[in-house]
Amino acid sequence: MFKRIDHVAIAVESLDDTISTFKQLIDDGVAKITYEEVPAQKVKVAFIHIGDTKIEFLEPTSPDSVVSKYLSKRGQGLHHIALETDEIYAESENVKARGFNPLNEPRLGAENKLVSFLHPKETGRVLVEIVGQDAGQAKKSV
Amino acid sequence: MFKRIDHVAIAVESLDDTISTFKQLIDDGVAKITYEEVPAQKVKVAFIHIGDTKIEFLEPTSPDSVVSKYLSKRGQGLHHIALETDEIYAESENVKARGFNPLNEPRLGAENKLVSFLHPKETGRVLVEIVGQDAGQAKKSV
Repeated sequence: MFKRIDHVAIAVESLDDTISTFKQLIDDGVAKITYEEVPAQKVKVAFIHIGDTKIEFLEPTSPDSVVSKYLSKRGQGLHHIALETDEIYAESENVKARGFNPLNEPRLGAENKLVSFLHPKETGRVLVEIVGQDAGQAKKSV
Repeated sequence: MFKRIDHVAIAVESLDDTISTFKQLIDDGVAKITYEEVPAQKVKVAFIHIGDTKIEFLEPTSPDSVVSKYLSKRGQGLHHIALETDEIYAESENVKARGFNPLNEPRLGAENKLVSFLHPKETGRVLVEIVGQDAGQAKKSV
């Protein structure tokens, strides 16, 4: 079961430039911002936390990052939405049973959480991420 | 002050097709869906409510809707993010003071709320909507 939108993500050429713009928009001092790198996806990531919601910003760290390819093709802009679930292995099987084919089995993503993606061609042209539990707490329920 | 992301919006050719796909993804019966038409923006709108978050789907009702133009240029996909505030007139003045130029003064949008938009050129290539209070409760605080 999906509980809520975990975050919406924006692909950017430069984290620094875009974070600066959003800080100015949202007002410095209000927003909590966290940074990390996700080597598996070859991206640097920032999350702006606004209340109990988050905007994720993705900057590629390599020309062969999928985010580099996205930027080359579409330019900077909204990249994906992420839906939260408590148990990603079960949810992954659920979406398969409902006719979808996740691009990957659950793997480590940002914020130390297990994530899986659905290709835009399956979802009305929107890249959808499934965000599950913390990788440290995960038990594969198979 | 911005409180949270109110919703993320997707521009679609057909509400029926995309809602059907997302119902299948999220699982029928879980998601609450609301429909309305927003004549001022020449769109039919559906909201899928997932927990306390929402995805908005926008289908143009006229070829001269801004959403028609978006679909012609970019194709179906993520369209904008909406940030919630309690007092849109004050927030509109705040963002102007911080150097932004909203595309419109607060006007009636979906869910009977007052809304204003910021052009993507000002926000790192992301159309940002400001969603304020219910139009029935609004008092212009000027």
